Amino acid sequence: MQRIDVASPVLKKNDELARENHEIFQSRGTVAVNLMSAPGAGKTTLLEKTLPALRSRFRCGVIEGDLRTDLDAERVRKTGVVAHQINTNSCHLDASMVRDAFAAAFSQPLDLLLIENIGNLVCPAAYDLGEDWRVTLFSVTEGADKPRKYPKMFYRSHAVVLNKIDLLPYIDVRLDELVESVLAVSPGAAVLPLSCRTGEGLEAWISWLHETVTRSLQTSANARKGV
Amino acid sequence: MQRIDVASPVLKKNDELARENHEIFQSRGTVAVNLMSAPGAGKTTLLEKTLPALRSRFRCGVIEGDLRTDLDAERVRKTGVVAHQINTNSCHLDASMVRDAFAAAFSQPLDLLLIENIGNLVCPAAYDLGEDWRVTLFSVTEGADKPRKYPKMFYRSHAVVLNKIDLLPYIDVRLDELVESVLAVSPGAAVLPLSCRTGEGLEAWISWLHETVTRSLQTSANARKGV
Repeated sequence: MQRIDVASPVLKKNDELARENHEIFQSRGTVAVNLMSAPGAGKTTLLEKTLPALRSRFRCGVIEGDLRTDLDAERVRKTGVVAHQINTNSCHLDASMVRDAFAAAFSQPLDLLLIENIGNLVCPAAYDLGEDWRVTLFSVTEGADKPRKYPKMFYRSHAVVLNKIDLLPYIDVRLDELVESVLAVSPGAAVLPLSCRTGEGLEAWISWLHETVTRSLQTSANARKGV
Repeated sequence: MQRIDVASPVLKKNDELARENHEIFQSRGTVAVNLMSAPGAGKTTLLEKTLPALRSRFRCGVIEGDLRTDLDAERVRKTGVVAHQINTNSCHLDASMVRDAFAAAFSQPLDLLLIENIGNLVCPAAYDLGEDWRVTLFSVTEGADKPRKYPKMFYRSHAVVLNKIDLLPYIDVRLDELVESVLAVSPGAAVLPLSCRTGEGLEAWISWLHETVTRSLQTSANARKGV
């Protein structure tokens, strides 16, 4: 069978739109973060734990991607942050969905846009959304072999958050092995082990995000001023 | 933007090939099981625990789908069962990949073909492989909301295996809530809680698979005899 190559023209078009999104974000002074993971690694819980610490420092907004339900947007809204739910039958968010959601939900100035992608370690890695930063969240229960098995997701990430470290005593996975496995695929990534449940490690993640966004906002402001 | 609908013709072609695969499996007297889950839910570990009990009863073979590496096929081969690794950049296995792998690796008679799909709760649900039975594996650590958020994967499944129940005392998820959540989306599914780590519940899963395969082999043998 001649396999039909459907990805290329779609990805090319997406890349163009993503570049335009990036310009839109920059012109609006918004730093965008694309948060990706497998289902159930804890993306929404991480947002719930992160937003209360960040919303006093930045004007924050969230785009939630899910196949069905608006459960995640409802959870995020309880932190007092505006959350826009995208329901798509697609296995990933694409640049056009994010553009439409951003235009529809965020007319007010926004410093930080957090985009929670569809729970999937494969497809979202191929679809640039125009984001400044890519963060992959990974549950330690998923095993140390996953970075090697899903390399594209990991090597494109600026930070890899290892969630659920409170479960390490009860599983056959070691933290040093996990960190080594991430760095083998993504040597430049910030690796941030934490537990959303106990709070351990959350401060380091929030500091990383705070510093990264602050630096991006400064760079973007300088660019607009022509510095 | 006009969104390009790439899925339909590809899926239609896949469905045709899947029907042909099903005929090939039937004519060969092989029962095929499509094992699907999110990354790290424990598909390969389940196969490692299941095959030693089944290989004395059935002639077994395994097709392993992964984006990269042949780690999983290597693990399965240690049980003494032939395993054929497919490495694909795709986010799912499709019917043509399975057909090629089956033709390449299994020239000898085979009662049971276990197909371990790519770790992904979205795309594999859309691609029929010609299998007789679909099993979704789900780690309890992924949370009780997942069946509602990924309904297609669950409502098409004949059995849903809830793995890692040994971790239930350490997470904020209850087993009855998980079972209820699966049955709300997939009322007819066999729900099989187990722990590959402690062995609890494995016997019920192996019995389900043994009975299901025995019944299918009998039906298929009768059909070939024109009974």
